[in-house]
Amino acid sequence: MCADAATHEIAPRSGVAFTLDKGDRLTVIDPRGEQVADLLAFNRHDLDEVISSGRTLDYASRIYLTTGDPLYSNRSNVLLRIVEDTVGRHDFLLTPCSADTFRIIYGDENPHRGCFGNLAHALAPFGVAPDHIPVAFNCFMNVPVDGKTGVITVEPPLSRAGDRIAFEAETDLVIGLTACSALQSNNGSFKPIHYRIERGTR
Amino acid sequence: MCADAATHEIAPRSGVAFTLDKGDRLTVIDPRGEQVADLLAFNRHDLDEVISSGRTLDYASRIYLTTGDPLYSNRSNVLLRIVEDTVGRHDFLLTPCSADTFRIIYGDENPHRGCFGNLAHALAPFGVAPDHIPVAFNCFMNVPVDGKTGVITVEPPLSRAGDRIAFEAETDLVIGLTACSALQSNNGSFKPIHYRIERGTR
Repeated sequence: MCADAATHEIAPRSGVAFTLDKGDRLTVIDPRGEQVADLLAFNRHDLDEVISSGRTLDYASRIYLTTGDPLYSNRSNVLLRIVEDTVGRHDFLLTPCSADTFRIIYGDENPHRGCFGNLAHALAPFGVAPDHIPVAFNCFMNVPVDGKTGVITVEPPLSRAGDRIAFEAETDLVIGLTACSALQSNNGSFKPIHYRIERGTR
Repeated sequence: MCADAATHEIAPRSGVAFTLDKGDRLTVIDPRGEQVADLLAFNRHDLDEVISSGRTLDYASRIYLTTGDPLYSNRSNVLLRIVEDTVGRHDFLLTPCSADTFRIIYGDENPHRGCFGNLAHALAPFGVAPDHIPVAFNCFMNVPVDGKTGVITVEPPLSRAGDRIAFEAETDLVIGLTACSALQSNNGSFKPIHYRIERGTR
């Protein structure tokens, strides 16, 4: 691994896209605490292959993923593997927040484009169509499920300032990553997200 | 509604696809009990619009859906609404079982193509690509979640012989529907699924 990886900042309520090569390590950092980052991954050589919550949760037999767990694609290939996690609570049930989320759940009349809009915008130059944005892996998002009633709630993230989750790319990828735009997901305020890429030697 | 809707049978471990018009009612029946049916719905006039577990669960704030609940698309439009449900326990977390499922979870060396393969085959004439098959709404599938650990288990369906769930189409649709092929999901045996379509007057 390269030791001098720069730290990049994603401004509050925005998003970025970039590529990873197989063997690269992506570290997503919550610099202030209680801030969610939605993560998407596509096979860089065939964008129809994308991370799949349904396959990943099925194979893990768990809705909460952490160190060692793979993120599978819709073709059942491992795209990313979690290699470090100082929090242990992330969400893989819910789609990125969007103008529709803010309209339907928050009742906003002029809604922000949300993580969905930010991801669509950032991923467009790579050729990803908005309709093909699936459920994201929502780093630090805290979504408990009541096992009896099935009710889900969006609670403050368990992440504190400096907490992080790191992923290793198991193939060449296009990544989308945000600083989440939904008030409820981030305990009422919008904060930045940091990330680092360490290039592999493979 | 037309009163003389015919009952169709889906043979064990197989699947079908058909169209619905806006206002039609689709009733999915478990004729013998403890049998799952995976359901997909696409906008018939634009196949890039498809049911979305992530949006539906987010807007419902529940993982267990029942009478009155809408199934939203990836564009946040309602494609189907549940209008009758004699069981009250269905799954919307897991992808259709597939050759990969049987290889990864069951260790099968020559795996069945599963609901995924059956859906891909049945939907191909309508123009649906396998990569665009999302998490299905799995009628009668019983997937409890341990709220504390996040562990999910696949338990015998709660459906008894004759139980049913009915949906009303809120737009013109292509539907994929199976008699599920995974042993664990169906309490160890493969049984048929019945369905009826009542044509609306809208």
